[in-house]
Amino acid sequence: MEISKTSRLSLVEQVVAQMEALIESGTWPIGYRIPPELELMGQFDVSRNTLREAIRALVHAGLLQTKQGSGTYVLTSSVLGAALEKRIQKASLLETLEVRQALEREAAHLASIRRNNEDIEQLRILLKKCQTAAKQKDRKEYVLSDMLLHKAIVDATHNSILIDLYDHMTTSIQASIENLAEMTNDVDFHIDPHKRLVHAIIDQNTDQAMAAVNEYIAQFKETLT
Amino acid sequence: MEISKTSRLSLVEQVVAQMEALIESGTWPIGYRIPPELELMGQFDVSRNTLREAIRALVHAGLLQTKQGSGTYVLTSSVLGAALEKRIQKASLLETLEVRQALEREAAHLASIRRNNEDIEQLRILLKKCQTAAKQKDRKEYVLSDMLLHKAIVDATHNSILIDLYDHMTTSIQASIENLAEMTNDVDFHIDPHKRLVHAIIDQNTDQAMAAVNEYIAQFKETLT
Repeated sequence: MEISKTSRLSLVEQVVAQMEALIESGTWPIGYRIPPELELMGQFDVSRNTLREAIRALVHAGLLQTKQGSGTYVLTSSVLGAALEKRIQKASLLETLEVRQALEREAAHLASIRRNNEDIEQLRILLKKCQTAAKQKDRKEYVLSDMLLHKAIVDATHNSILIDLYDHMTTSIQASIENLAEMTNDVDFHIDPHKRLVHAIIDQNTDQAMAAVNEYIAQFKETLT
Repeated sequence: MEISKTSRLSLVEQVVAQMEALIESGTWPIGYRIPPELELMGQFDVSRNTLREAIRALVHAGLLQTKQGSGTYVLTSSVLGAALEKRIQKASLLETLEVRQALEREAAHLASIRRNNEDIEQLRILLKKCQTAAKQKDRKEYVLSDMLLHKAIVDATHNSILIDLYDHMTTSIQASIENLAEMTNDVDFHIDPHKRLVHAIIDQNTDQAMAAVNEYIAQFKETLT
């Protein structure tokens, strides 16, 4: 009996690992409705009970979400991201921002060393979008372009854990930031430090890149208090 | 049938949440063998199947480990930590160190602002231990004290996410660092920047604290190359 319990567990774990791989690789993208039970039972060659237990494990891990009468959907693409999002829900906005800033400082540092031509092109395009949005005082467009610019800087570090942590940190606090932006009437777009940051990264000037991050973080903290 | 599936899922989730709380609060500490099935079935007032499924979900999440014929043990204390450890296993040592350094830089910054008297006492005690170990060229003792000193600095930030991320990052790379220390014959104990770091935190000199971190990180990276 102990043995059958083990082999059943390992079968569930195998299905879980296969489904995780489908999700993390994007074969099952975020928002995707996973195929019906019968199809998956055939695909993984397992019983209904094993399949259901694997799905429940992924629901528990936060990767899948089961909607009544509608099916099961992909909610997020990584186990780490799901855990981070759950953890952030229990933390304060200030705590989350501080960790995000830690990642942004290091990202500025590493991006200024490692950025390649493709990164540089992305950074130029996104800085331009931020500048246009700031000029037109289009807050919604600015928030989006700003988020994409920071993501592009983190991508330019070519450090996969940093990219993962930052991605999920950003998703989680995006809503809070938008609320915050709505609270403050006089929106400061902080465009100057962003411009200096992007140029310092392109010029591989590490010290100036980190100084620019410190500057916009200080400005942002003033908005918070 | 859809309805009974839902209520069973929510019952499993309830047991999972209760067990997570027992683990995260330390009531079930790391290494603890959880009580036998019958006892837990009574405690949570659930069937054997529900209990087993909850345990399997926590095994999948990396919080529990089932050992054949011996029982089920607490493996780690947080879902985020378990996810981070799994993620780090897939990353390179350099990537992990870079993220750890990001957290250490921000920790130096925040600790120098927030450290209280208790933190200061801990920092003094652990710096002393590092200094003694360095003087006696006791590498094993130095590695341990150094790890505790950095943990104390992160604790002095009083930011719970930063503490969580750093804790699990440290556990995961501890083994690699020890291997690295054994590889390099001439061990540099980097005691001077550590001393400057601790004193800068105590004196609330944020700039000097971050400069000291940059210094020992640069020294450490030289060892790596």
